[in-house]
Amino acid sequence: MSYGGQYAPPGYHGAGGFAPRHDPPLGADPQLWQWFVAVDRDRSGHISVVELQRALINGDWSQFDLDTVKLLMNIFDTDRSGTIGFNEFSGLWKYIKDWQSVFHHFDRDRSGSIDGQEFQEALHQFGYRLSPQLLNLLQRKYGSTGHPGITFDRFVRACVVVKQITESFAALDTDRDGWVQVNYDQFMETVLTLP
Amino acid sequence: MSYGGQYAPPGYHGAGGFAPRHDPPLGADPQLWQWFVAVDRDRSGHISVVELQRALINGDWSQFDLDTVKLLMNIFDTDRSGTIGFNEFSGLWKYIKDWQSVFHHFDRDRSGSIDGQEFQEALHQFGYRLSPQLLNLLQRKYGSTGHPGITFDRFVRACVVVKQITESFAALDTDRDGWVQVNYDQFMETVLTLP
Repeated sequence: MSYGGQYAPPGYHGAGGFAPRHDPPLGADPQLWQWFVAVDRDRSGHISVVELQRALINGDWSQFDLDTVKLLMNIFDTDRSGTIGFNEFSGLWKYIKDWQSVFHHFDRDRSGSIDGQEFQEALHQFGYRLSPQLLNLLQRKYGSTGHPGITFDRFVRACVVVKQITESFAALDTDRDGWVQVNYDQFMETVLTLP
Repeated sequence: MSYGGQYAPPGYHGAGGFAPRHDPPLGADPQLWQWFVAVDRDRSGHISVVELQRALINGDWSQFDLDTVKLLMNIFDTDRSGTIGFNEFSGLWKYIKDWQSVFHHFDRDRSGSIDGQEFQEALHQFGYRLSPQLLNLLQRKYGSTGHPGITFDRFVRACVVVKQITESFAALDTDRDGWVQVNYDQFMETVLTLP
């Protein structure tokens, strides 16, 4: 039985056993600091996209896809440094743990991936009423290869994409009539800023 | 020196050496048939997404990302069977060869990836006049990890995305005034059908 995405066990990917070059911030959770140090393979004190991708694995041991890693970086690299420091990592860690619970909750048959019915229930419970066509489209787009259903990384991405498309639309729909008017640049920018 | 994406050498990924279960169609290019058989690892006579992803590698030996593989499948799986037969494979093969030439042409410094300036020149030559903001956005979105610039797989995806966003916009802009009016379902469907 395997569940959604999880960090590699400390020491599995990292060079565990060496003393970290940086000391933990005052009051830091020691376990979280351990994980941070394990992910920060070059001991720079910051986690790069590459380090993050190496550390994030799905329940089937596949690596997170790059676009999902970039999505996470975009959300948590709040100071836009291109890397994630320990404080940003704490937020990211909690976010992934929360998504794991969501994934676990909706993966009712404990298959390690989210099938069509489970996906529909998840989006419905998040408050999205999508047409069958859109649900089909999402499943085809975010479905994984090699086995049916959606793995943890792509499930997170699909949910965040729906949220962000909906928010982008709402931001453009200033008069709240369910229609938006956009020009080419706005259209392309809106599409390209989606994860 | 390494160039863009290329098929794995025949026999590298495939179970080369065994007699193929299927005979080549009459008049088939023998070399192309060899490659097809090498990619078709389970000898089903058809190439699945998984088989295609295993066979497609970038100049730096990284695997094509899943979304690019799906994009290629979507373009060439013309009978919507979910797999690619030999005839569809011939088209795909030519398409990748053509993109390799394009990539090679614009990778002026022969770095094996496309940097910002090279990317801008490529899009300009394809006839797209994008604002500096949009160019930046594209580079951030399709940039690869581990090294600067855009690898072959993501370069193809970026160019196809620009083409398809532009075409989607043009299809919606029926009165050709540079503005489109869409509702939520149209907006989401347009975004989700992009690669």
